[in-house]
Amino acid sequence: MERNIIQELTREIREFADARDWQKFHTPKNLAMAIAGEAGELAAEFQWLTPEESMENSLSRDQRKAIELEIADVQIYLLRLADVLNVDIPEVVREKIQINNDRF
Amino acid sequence: MERNIIQELTREIREFADARDWQKFHTPKNLAMAIAGEAGELAAEFQWLTPEESMENSLSRDQRKAIELEIADVQIYLLRLADVLNVDIPEVVREKIQINNDRF
Amino acid sequence: MERNIIQELTREIREFADARDWQKFHTPKNLAMAIAGEAGELAAEFQWLTPEESMENSLSRDQRKAIELEIADVQIYLLRLADVLNVDIPEVVREKIQINNDRF
Amino acid sequence: MERNIIQELTREIREFADARDWQKFHTPKNLAMAIAGEAGELAAEFQWLTPEESMENSLSRDQRKAIELEIADVQIYLLRLADVLNVDIPEVVREKIQINNDRF
Repeated sequence: MERNIIQELTREIREFADARDWQKFHTPKNLAMAIAGEAGELAAEFQWLTPEESMENSLSRDQRKAIELEIADVQIYLLRLADVLNVDIPEVVREKIQINNDRF
Repeated sequence: MERNIIQELTREIREFADARDWQKFHTPKNLAMAIAGEAGELAAEFQWLTPEESMENSLSRDQRKAIELEIADVQIYLLRLADVLNVDIPEVVREKIQINNDRF
Repeated sequence: MERNIIQELTREIREFADARDWQKFHTPKNLAMAIAGEAGELAAEFQWLTPEESMENSLSRDQRKAIELEIADVQIYLLRLADVLNVDIPEVVREKIQINNDRF
Repeated sequence: MERNIIQELTREIREFADARDWQKFHTPKNLAMAIAGEAGELAAEFQWLTPEESMENSLSRDQRKAIELEIADVQIYLLRLADVLNVDIPEVVREKIQINNDRF
């Protein structure tokens, strides 16, 4: 079976953690905390910008690079949390879109 | 060209937002704030659990469902932010894994 | 000795927790997670507002009330964390202001 | 009238911001974002610690110092947000304790 890109990234992140024997740190509780930490750092990149200054064409190259790496950090821990809890991200994303669709 | 699952979910989320004329709310600044908000709600699901209680086999069905939907919320806004900034998530995730690889 | 208002609120929060036998939940790790959760909820109150709409005179009565209670939640857990770690809030706030003063 | 310690710290933080002409950055929206950012950094200090390792007596001097300064950062922005919105922190904290008291 061919893996999709989410499964592929999940596997790469898992191998990175396994190679360093980090599974013991990667409890769901700790990973949820790490996501909050990285989301805070992502927010910090934008905190003093106006909405206009936060747009793609207004960001400096350095700002963009910092933002990209913070997006990556949130995504890495989110994929890792979904992995240790056996959560299927596309499935729950589509379930949530459907809930929002019924609500709005 | 066949889209991968990240591109597919990104498109579904964009269409949902476009249909409600929400682009004006979806500035990068606002989306980063929404990610922090949802990450806080995800953390809140785990805050009083011990690490052991946070493991897959210890969660109740209701706890698991709540966690799945919070994971979905973080993922939805993260895909949306990457979309409005034209950030390629697999690319930046792999770039960050490489940086971590060089560091640890 | 007369207690100041921070010591007074800290005592009231401690008594509330003690009366419910919640000390066992109030580890520093859990309290830091609770602060992140409440800070996320506070951010969520502002996420779709423009900077102008977030100003005191533009908020509706309901928005203001919701914001006040989220500010209270962050403050309650912050006082509780400082209490369990024996951190003197005025002292560390002034130390940090001094650090910022030297930096900027 | 004698100011209490919360009013005193609030005034010191306001003077610091005014001296640097930072009022324009200190919209309620931006400050709420800054609180989420600092709360994320505070959470990050604890993310890989067990609950036991997070206790006062288990922290190294360096860990404690880092935690103290993150507590200060959250407190500084929370006082600043309350200041720009004219929120009386002791009043809302006690209102929230009362709400919790009725609930639990």
